[in-house]
Amino acid sequence: MNTHTIAGGGQLRLRVAEASDIDTILALIHELADYERLAHEVKADADALRDTLFGDRRYAEVLIAECASQPAGFALFFHNYSTFLARPGLYLEDLYVRPAFRGQGIGGRLLAHVGALAVRRGCGRLEFSVLDWNAPAIEVYRALGAQPLDDWTTFRFTGPALQTLATRYET
Amino acid sequence: MNTHTIAGGGQLRLRVAEASDIDTILALIHELADYERLAHEVKADADALRDTLFGDRRYAEVLIAECASQPAGFALFFHNYSTFLARPGLYLEDLYVRPAFRGQGIGGRLLAHVGALAVRRGCGRLEFSVLDWNAPAIEVYRALGAQPLDDWTTFRFTGPALQTLATRYET
Repeated sequence: MNTHTIAGGGQLRLRVAEASDIDTILALIHELADYERLAHEVKADADALRDTLFGDRRYAEVLIAECASQPAGFALFFHNYSTFLARPGLYLEDLYVRPAFRGQGIGGRLLAHVGALAVRRGCGRLEFSVLDWNAPAIEVYRALGAQPLDDWTTFRFTGPALQTLATRYET
Repeated sequence: MNTHTIAGGGQLRLRVAEASDIDTILALIHELADYERLAHEVKADADALRDTLFGDRRYAEVLIAECASQPAGFALFFHNYSTFLARPGLYLEDLYVRPAFRGQGIGGRLLAHVGALAVRRGCGRLEFSVLDWNAPAIEVYRALGAQPLDDWTTFRFTGPALQTLATRYET
């Protein structure tokens, strides 16, 4: 059911990642960060991924795309929530296909699979963020019907700013 | 510990919401939507809030701010996840203070409380989105050390576009 014949005639398999995939996931995260020109931001290691993805509390879900048993890409997502809908959504944190496997519709298959999970789980939305310079990706997402939330900007507290905020009212 | 003397001398209490607060939460969501000029987007009702916030799976957490036992505002948040950090974060979906209770630092207290939870839970980040026209709020967040993620745009599949995506490869 999750095996598909893709452009070029190869077999694509989408499967839920297991703890034994940690090294693959870590390698894919590093490749994605390189592609996004954000390699300097990667602090992840195998132990931290194991704890947070396959430990007592699992903060995200991971799908692996395989072609002929080779990892071709991955999707990582978690539930968010809309108060206006009073329904959960899915937030796609990462979607990545290795260069050697591009142009065969694998990214679209991963995205559609996550979209189908969102519908099956009663989610109102599937959301994700795209780097503004990534015009080819943006074109694909728009063509599929995704709408940009142009009126909103995301802000982040991290590092010392988060520590300062957290202790602001301590005496 | 979660009771504070605020500007003007009143007592502010921050407490975790319970199922008996559903009507209050719903009223606050409607007020927030009015403020954001998005009242037309609110589909939430009491049953859906009860199912998703206080049911078998709780998709978000809610803090209520009270002054003299009157609801003054609320914060609603959930865990997100960063692959680059291999750590969870907190995402603040809603932060709202009723007009009659503004100017006393209640919003800052709610925000700092969520920030302290993020630190205590080992989160790497506290994130939230702000409407671009809401300059007064943006100024406050920047002054507290929040950084805008200016290079990113969030995209959303919802409604028919999500249905179409989900069934794209079905035969």
